[in-house]
Amino acid sequence: MKRSFVIAIVIFVMSPFAVGQATPTTAGKQPVLQTLPERLGYSPDAKLLIVHADDLGMAHSVNAASIKAFETGLVSSGSIMVPCPWLPEIAAYARKFPEADLGLHLTLTSEWNLFRWGPVLSKDRVPSLLTRDGYLQPTETEAASRADAREAEAEIRAQIERAKALGIQPTHLDSHMGTLYQNEALFRVFLRVSRENKLPLRISKDWLGRAPFISSNLTPDDIVIDRILEIGPSVRPESWAAFYTEAIKSIGPGVTEVIVHLAYDDEEMRAATLDHPDWGASWRQRDFDFFTSAAFRRLLQENNIKLITWRELGRLMKKL
Amino acid sequence: MKRSFVIAIVIFVMSPFAVGQATPTTAGKQPVLQTLPERLGYSPDAKLLIVHADDLGMAHSVNAASIKAFETGLVSSGSIMVPCPWLPEIAAYARKFPEADLGLHLTLTSEWNLFRWGPVLSKDRVPSLLTRDGYLQPTETEAASRADAREAEAEIRAQIERAKALGIQPTHLDSHMGTLYQNEALFRVFLRVSRENKLPLRISKDWLGRAPFISSNLTPDDIVIDRILEIGPSVRPESWAAFYTEAIKSIGPGVTEVIVHLAYDDEEMRAATLDHPDWGASWRQRDFDFFTSAAFRRLLQENNIKLITWRELGRLMKKL
Repeated sequence: MKRSFVIAIVIFVMSPFAVGQATPTTAGKQPVLQTLPERLGYSPDAKLLIVHADDLGMAHSVNAASIKAFETGLVSSGSIMVPCPWLPEIAAYARKFPEADLGLHLTLTSEWNLFRWGPVLSKDRVPSLLTRDGYLQPTETEAASRADAREAEAEIRAQIERAKALGIQPTHLDSHMGTLYQNEALFRVFLRVSRENKLPLRISKDWLGRAPFISSNLTPDDIVIDRILEIGPSVRPESWAAFYTEAIKSIGPGVTEVIVHLAYDDEEMRAATLDHPDWGASWRQRDFDFFTSAAFRRLLQENNIKLITWRELGRLMKKL
Repeated sequence: MKRSFVIAIVIFVMSPFAVGQATPTTAGKQPVLQTLPERLGYSPDAKLLIVHADDLGMAHSVNAASIKAFETGLVSSGSIMVPCPWLPEIAAYARKFPEADLGLHLTLTSEWNLFRWGPVLSKDRVPSLLTRDGYLQPTETEAASRADAREAEAEIRAQIERAKALGIQPTHLDSHMGTLYQNEALFRVFLRVSRENKLPLRISKDWLGRAPFISSNLTPDDIVIDRILEIGPSVRPESWAAFYTEAIKSIGPGVTEVIVHLAYDDEEMRAATLDHPDWGASWRQRDFDFFTSAAFRRLLQENNIKLITWRELGRLMKKL
């Protein structure tokens, strides 16, 4: 997820919603209010954190940094962009480490200037998703306003199929640059595909108020985590570690996801993100540096925060 | 061009064919035998060389090294792979430097393991060009044996159109991994597209004997250069400079093309070419080091070799 969509959620906000969630039970019984940690087998006040790397498959630099971060044990999850050229590299990793918590970062945009990709489906079948030059749209706004929802649905289903054909067993779904949260038609597609595949999608209680269609389309069976934390362009590079440190110290009980963008500040990444310092190469290097640091490991320990994965959340859907 | 196709032409062979070529003249007159240098306005015994970088657009590392090499003035030409993800980067260069001698490296293969690309055309329209996972075929042999020639023709025409839409004015055509020389049906497609676009294609006298259909389909109007020089896997890394030095010293009169593969031996390129040292990252770095060296510049001077471009050759076609 990137850019304007995210700016609105940059500031870490404690959820204004009750942390209790209706848990479906057998028919006829009243739902029992249980917190998400309880449903996962933890104490109700457990502080559970998913550290999630977005954009896998986009570039070699992203894959290499994310894999390195997984190896530290400090980044617990990630999601893959199926239309991107480096998909085969991360698919090879997924086949080698089937226990890795890898979801799909469903992709309807191709946002960089010098480095671009098209859809998984045949271009003739998804004309509304494409620019004149045959690539996916550059922004989430253009993608959402122009997309025929049926074409978007066909494309994201094709992305899931392609991932599975390459041996990826996705544990969750999210939406690159938040395109699938931009309007109700796309969000309904996203929910339908999530439910049919019994794969949780990225949604948190602090997002419920963003648009009326978000909460109105959710049911108690959908997994809604407690909060999402993400840094934004308003944080100066020298304040990176301080921002994350404060945010992590403030994490309350429940399930929190921190969305990070990992890559190395190398030639490939600098060229890929040219003229776009936000979510650019040095931004991603800073994320990598913080989330693989001994300081971050200590923060987790000192604040009694336990890392979890989307796979655990997905099991709740599979039980339904 | 790469791999097995090329191995057969690795050894630099003085052309067994006469250097004279029939030049078309006005109707009714006998063609006048004139050497290619003469037709280009040079003395008949001029030693003219195109130093040609293949695979532009494939990766950032390839683009960056090739552009750097163009800036030295020692690499005079290059060709672009339109289906690859870094096409927009080299297209931006082409728009900024319209005098650059850039052709199209028509691409029907996607040969690396961890980094792949599909066709420019809608996948539904070119099923014979694709593997089951929707990428172009991995080898020139598979690509040529499975390709429906009409689909191949549609795809290479689409590659030319896409390049022009991005502001590239190609000066010549060649074929990635030599796929379009693998059988007569594909070679005829290649020739037809070359002639209609009045863009010379890569063909040399030392290639004429390789398959009967090559010379039988050429006419006196087609541009045939005198020889092509390319290094191959049998040359050890420590002998790289010696191989090229000897080959360049041996260049005779006429038009010679030396095909090089430029990139940096960096993380991106090492990952892209993983498990394939032939035409791999360090191979390409060695090519870059030699062809941007003061030693190469001296060799050209000492041997009275003049660098030319495909644009000059293309003008001969446009006069017809």
